[in-house]
Amino acid sequence: MIELVPCSDGRHLTEIRTDWLTGRTVILAEHRAERPNEFAEAAGFAESLTSSSVDCPFCVGHESITPPAVFTRHDELGRWRVRVVPNKFPAVALDAPFAAGAHEVIIESARHVDRTAALSVAELADVLAAYQERLVFWRSRGLFEYGLVFKNLGAAAGASLAHVHSQLIALPQPPAPVAAEMARAGTSYREQGSCPYCRLIEEERRVGERVVVERDGLIAFCPYVSLQPCEVWLMPTAHEPWFEQRPQSVGASPAALAETLHALLVRMEAILPQPAYNLLVRTAPWQDEAAECGHWRIEILPRVNPLAGFELGTQMHINPICPTRAATQLRLG
Amino acid sequence: MIELVPCSDGRHLTEIRTDWLTGRTVILAEHRAERPNEFAEAAGFAESLTSSSVDCPFCVGHESITPPAVFTRHDELGRWRVRVVPNKFPAVALDAPFAAGAHEVIIESARHVDRTAALSVAELADVLAAYQERLVFWRSRGLFEYGLVFKNLGAAAGASLAHVHSQLIALPQPPAPVAAEMARAGTSYREQGSCPYCRLIEEERRVGERVVVERDGLIAFCPYVSLQPCEVWLMPTAHEPWFEQRPQSVGASPAALAETLHALLVRMEAILPQPAYNLLVRTAPWQDEAAECGHWRIEILPRVNPLAGFELGTQMHINPICPTRAATQLRLG
Repeated sequence: MIELVPCSDGRHLTEIRTDWLTGRTVILAEHRAERPNEFAEAAGFAESLTSSSVDCPFCVGHESITPPAVFTRHDELGRWRVRVVPNKFPAVALDAPFAAGAHEVIIESARHVDRTAALSVAELADVLAAYQERLVFWRSRGLFEYGLVFKNLGAAAGASLAHVHSQLIALPQPPAPVAAEMARAGTSYREQGSCPYCRLIEEERRVGERVVVERDGLIAFCPYVSLQPCEVWLMPTAHEPWFEQRPQSVGASPAALAETLHALLVRMEAILPQPAYNLLVRTAPWQDEAAECGHWRIEILPRVNPLAGFELGTQMHINPICPTRAATQLRLG
Repeated sequence: MIELVPCSDGRHLTEIRTDWLTGRTVILAEHRAERPNEFAEAAGFAESLTSSSVDCPFCVGHESITPPAVFTRHDELGRWRVRVVPNKFPAVALDAPFAAGAHEVIIESARHVDRTAALSVAELADVLAAYQERLVFWRSRGLFEYGLVFKNLGAAAGASLAHVHSQLIALPQPPAPVAAEMARAGTSYREQGSCPYCRLIEEERRVGERVVVERDGLIAFCPYVSLQPCEVWLMPTAHEPWFEQRPQSVGASPAALAETLHALLVRMEAILPQPAYNLLVRTAPWQDEAAECGHWRIEILPRVNPLAGFELGTQMHINPICPTRAATQLRLG
C-alpha cells in the first residue's frame, strides 16, 4: 500500500509544477490524500469481482469470437501465447474517410489472467515483441505518421474486459499534444545541440531521488511532473527515438526490457490499493525530424485519483503523492 | 436510458472532429457503444450504494466538521440553504508560495441528497447566486485572473462525497488550455469583428439539429465536438463574457437560468444509466481583453465513457454518441 505520511521534512508538499517539454501541469497537494472517500469501499467491491473466462472473447478456444488474428506468436508446442486482432469496435478504421487509422487489440495471454504480473518475463517479452512488430507493420505501410500502444488495466483505468490485453492505434498525424511536444523538443535540440530527453535522463541521474532503477541500458524514474501517484517513465539510456526500431548494437536487449518492465509492474501492482493503471508506449512520431530530438518511453500512469471536473476543465491534474516519495516506495532493490 | 441505434441514415457515425476554437478533438465512433463491458454490473452496484448522512460533513448539524463558512444563504426561517466553506483539503491556497490560489466548497443543500434534480428550482437559484457571489469576491481581490466553478456528481465523475456540492478554484493565471482558447478567440475577434461565441450560437441556431432548448435569453445545445455522450453547453444568447458580472438590463434573469439548468439536469439525470457528470461554469478570464471575445458558458459533461490510456496519451476523447442524436434525446418540450 502507498504510505500517506508527510515528506521527509515533515511538511505536506503543495506545489504547482509545469513541464516545459510536455506542457503538462500538475498540482502536488499531498494533504489531499487524507480526504474522506465514501465510494472507496464500493469501488473496492467492484474491482474485486473476477470475471469469468466462460464468456471471455480473449480466452483460448474462443478465437472465433474475435476477428481473425493478424499476428500470432506460439510456444514450442504450437499453442498461441500472444494474438493480435483488429479491434471489433474500432475508434478509427482504414476505410473511414473522416477517421482514418488502424485499431488493433493485443491479447497478451491465452490464459484468463487480469494482471500483467501474472505473466512470466518470457511471456511479457513476447507481448513487447508483438508491440514492436505491429508498429513496424503500420509504419512500413506509409499511411500513418503516429502509432500509440496503450494498455488499460482495471475498470478505474478504463478497461472494459479483464483478460490482459493492450491496444494499438495508428493515425495519419500525431495528436496535437504529441506534435506540440515534438515541436518543443525540436526547438530545444536546435538551441542546445542535443536530444532533450537524453538531457532529462542526465538530470534525473544527477538528482537521483526520483530514480526507481537503472540497469542494462534502461532507466526508470518518477517524473518531476507526475500526473498521478507513482507514475513511472521507463526509457532507454541510449538515444533511441523509436520503440519499434531499436538498434541491435547498443541499448537494452529485448530480454532486459521485459525483465525491468515486469519488475516495475509487479512492484506497482503490489503497492497500489487496487491495481488500475494505463501503460503508454510513446514511440516518436514517424517523421524524419524525430531522429534527432525523439526518444521513446514507456509511461505507467496509475489511476489512483479520479479525473474530475477540474482536470477536464483545466487539463491540470491534482496529485497527492510527491514523485520523490513515490520513487522511494517503488525503488527496485 | 440512452438509445443506441444507428444514425438516421442507417450508418454508424465514425468521424474525427477538431474544434478550432477550444482545440479539443473527439473521435465519434458510434458502434463502440455496443462493446461488451464486464465491469458495468459491478459499477452499477457501487454507484447504487447511498451513503449515510450520519457521517456526512455537509449535512445540517455537522457544520463544525467543515471550516467556518465564508458565505451562507438562509431561508425565511433562518435555516441555511447554501453554505460556502474553504476546502479542508485544498489543491491551492493563498499562503502556498508555489501553488497560490483559492479553493472553496459550495454545499448546495442542508439535506443529504445526491442528485441536483432533488433540489427545487429556487434552491438551485440560490446555488447559482452563491457561485456568482464567490466569483465576484475572488475577482475583486485582484489576486487572480481566473476562477472556475465545477461540480463532480457521482463516483464516476470523481466525486468523493455524495451530498450535492460544487467547488470553486481561483488561480493567478488561466490554465494553458483556457489561455490558448482565449488567444484563438481574440484572433478571431480581430479578424471577423465579432465575438466568436456569438457567431457559434448563430450557427447552432441555423443548423438547429443540435439545439436542446432556446428560451428566455438562453440557448442549450450539444456541441459539434462533444467529448462525451450528451454533453451540453448552456450559454446566454446575449454577449456576456463573465458569469459573475451579468448585466441586469439584457440577458436571462437568474430565475430563468435556474429554471433552464434545472430542467436540463433533470432530463440528463433521467436518461443517463447512472447519473455521473461534471458541470463546469466557464466564466471568461478576468482580463480586459475578454470583454470583447469572451462569452461564459456552463458545460455539462456526462461521464459515460471512461477516460482511458488513449485519452490520456493523446487528449483525444472517444465518444460513441453523435451530438445530433444526443440533442434529440435531451430536447426539452
